[in-house]
Amino acid sequence: MIKAAVLGFGTVGSGVVELIDINRESIDRRLPEGIEVKYILDLRDFPDSPYKDRVVHDFNIILEDPEIKVICETMGGKEPAYTFSKKALEKGISVCTSNKELVAAHGPELLKIAAENHCSYLFEASVGGGIPIIRPMNVSLAPESITQIIGILNGTTNYMMTRMEHEEISFDEVLREAQSKGYAEKNPEADIEGHDACRKIAILSSLMCGKTVRYEDIPCEGISSISMTDVAYARSIGRAIKLLGISERDEKAGTFYVRTAPYMVPASHPLHGVEGVFNAVFVHGNLLDNVMFYGRGAGKFPTASAVVSDMVDCAMNIGQNIPVRWSDEVMELSDPGSKTGRFFVRVAASEKDKALDLFEGCKQAAPGCGPEDDFAFVTPPVAEAAFAELLKQFSDVRSSIRILG
Amino acid sequence: MIKAAVLGFGTVGSGVVELIDINRESIDRRLPEGIEVKYILDLRDFPDSPYKDRVVHDFNIILEDPEIKVICETMGGKEPAYTFSKKALEKGISVCTSNKELVAAHGPELLKIAAENHCSYLFEASVGGGIPIIRPMNVSLAPESITQIIGILNGTTNYMMTRMEHEEISFDEVLREAQSKGYAEKNPEADIEGHDACRKIAILSSLMCGKTVRYEDIPCEGISSISMTDVAYARSIGRAIKLLGISERDEKAGTFYVRTAPYMVPASHPLHGVEGVFNAVFVHGNLLDNVMFYGRGAGKFPTASAVVSDMVDCAMNIGQNIPVRWSDEVMELSDPGSKTGRFFVRVAASEKDKALDLFEGCKQAAPGCGPEDDFAFVTPPVAEAAFAELLKQFSDVRSSIRILG
Repeated sequence: MIKAAVLGFGTVGSGVVELIDINRESIDRRLPEGIEVKYILDLRDFPDSPYKDRVVHDFNIILEDPEIKVICETMGGKEPAYTFSKKALEKGISVCTSNKELVAAHGPELLKIAAENHCSYLFEASVGGGIPIIRPMNVSLAPESITQIIGILNGTTNYMMTRMEHEEISFDEVLREAQSKGYAEKNPEADIEGHDACRKIAILSSLMCGKTVRYEDIPCEGISSISMTDVAYARSIGRAIKLLGISERDEKAGTFYVRTAPYMVPASHPLHGVEGVFNAVFVHGNLLDNVMFYGRGAGKFPTASAVVSDMVDCAMNIGQNIPVRWSDEVMELSDPGSKTGRFFVRVAASEKDKALDLFEGCKQAAPGCGPEDDFAFVTPPVAEAAFAELLKQFSDVRSSIRILG
Repeated sequence: MIKAAVLGFGTVGSGVVELIDINRESIDRRLPEGIEVKYILDLRDFPDSPYKDRVVHDFNIILEDPEIKVICETMGGKEPAYTFSKKALEKGISVCTSNKELVAAHGPELLKIAAENHCSYLFEASVGGGIPIIRPMNVSLAPESITQIIGILNGTTNYMMTRMEHEEISFDEVLREAQSKGYAEKNPEADIEGHDACRKIAILSSLMCGKTVRYEDIPCEGISSISMTDVAYARSIGRAIKLLGISERDEKAGTFYVRTAPYMVPASHPLHGVEGVFNAVFVHGNLLDNVMFYGRGAGKFPTASAVVSDMVDCAMNIGQNIPVRWSDEVMELSDPGSKTGRFFVRVAASEKDKALDLFEGCKQAAPGCGPEDDFAFVTPPVAEAAFAELLKQFSDVRSSIRILG
């Protein structure tokens, strides 16, 4: 029996402990020796839990027990998760995590320590919850030059956009609903302003190039400015608004454009149908063409399932490093202002002539869909920076949203 | 440099050799030693190929060269692929294949030989072409009890059904078109009658249970009886007809229902939007919930990409077996007649009363969609065997198609 410890007995951590019991038969089929959680580290006690006897409060008990071969870190946040992970890896204990904040901030350093100490640092659950995406990126897509990744990476915002689309309820209402259902945090900023999706596209972009794409370098917009009117316009032109993380190879510069922002996604795109709390990652490889991975981006058991798949992988490779190519060399990103794309824009009807003049070849979008004094249009392809300058010439810009494809 | 040999220089085999050259940089990032194709085995010579000097006609040259660590078998068919694969594995040379016929027929035996000889037998490309599905099933979904797999597993038939849906052209016309585009074989029986999809769902079902699901045991229907009228009816009730391979856990019996047949897929299902030559595999895990893998199910480079990902994996694990749990114990399947589901049925309008009488609670489907003397309806849930008996009581059954969900 391989002995493991779980750090943090919150939603995901308790899911890991329970899943290992519930699905023991499936796990044993893959790992005939089996896996057992010997310790659960938490500040709290859990007197009513069937696992109360495994709870410890001192990390050193785990670190100093030579039986422990695998640690599952589901604490969240940078500290003490970072220090604990580092100490474990330095002792040759593999660490599996769902902690995207830590992975985005210290991934390459922890991977290096793992490689030096013949153990592994795996983080399947840090992006896309239960969706297998990190391992496929690392192994299955290894022969590819990946030219584009587009991800619906945050379940809270995708749920909100889907509700706004189908139920025609306002942003504020749908946020309250998401909070009452537990899909959104009390302080929903990290989700709604795109920071969570941004960390995830930073991780995927880093794996795409093998260097470090810093999330601080990624332009990031959330969905808080999206109105029901915008959603209705999108529907009228056969699109749905989704918060996307996008990473695209800039062939000329040999680097990447990366961005997190709401986009209008066409019905013909496989991401269009990804609704509610589901997430998906669409990847274009130069020879593989398009692939997409779809599933639950969050939730106790889906996330726990991804963590346990990593734990089983580590348990099958004790004494060996499972390589993940991601160096701490910082990847300079392309100037986001030079990226070309189309935009949906809504201005006051009185500025229609200006719009037609400034955006030559622009097309009026869904006349009659919004308020009478609206003029909505879709621009021809234009560089981001040039678009921002042109937009300044309007006195009443009601919205501007990027168009995918 | 890891030395490899490619058996069969057809579409996929030549794709493998070219891909290793084109994407050398990506491959080297994963496998710093690099990989090189030293031999290409084929009966033919290729005097105009840049790879002509690597072509050999005698398999023993490969088998007796101690430098060869990995073999890529892209010959297709059972023999001589089976004999060559077996001999290579017995010598400790890993084998990667796209040959679904061989995998479906001899997978567990070859896996066992690989394990005994500290090498690997991998077959990512045998199902879903370029879609990463075999490795995710084996590793990422290892902690799950998988309760359902639904796959669009054949690109030819999915292309044909998509064309019939959007362009309203007949089955015969669309088949000719698919043949002229190279999407369908001159002898299209294996695709159209569902045999290809059936082999693939047999492989996926075997991986799902770890035993052998024999494709000969799977009820298999193709798409040759699907008419434009049926396609129009499906559209009228918000569905699309797709050829599916389905495997569902029968919780009571502890075994599986497996079937290959056309189904009417609702617009709300993620498989509904999978169009043209694309394939997708939808998987339900007991704790992971739904995941889906989408991509190109065939084609030179997508398939080659999957084979090369296996070759790189083998090259990184020389002297070690990459375990795949699939024993030769035959999995008895549940009686397909006892499976319950709903059906779309078209009979002569004169038999409307009989329909309403025999299928209590059935609903008329899309009146006016088809010929005037049609009566189309959707049955309530009914066991397959009971349905077949009831259908015998009609004198003019124009079509009957299963309903998904």
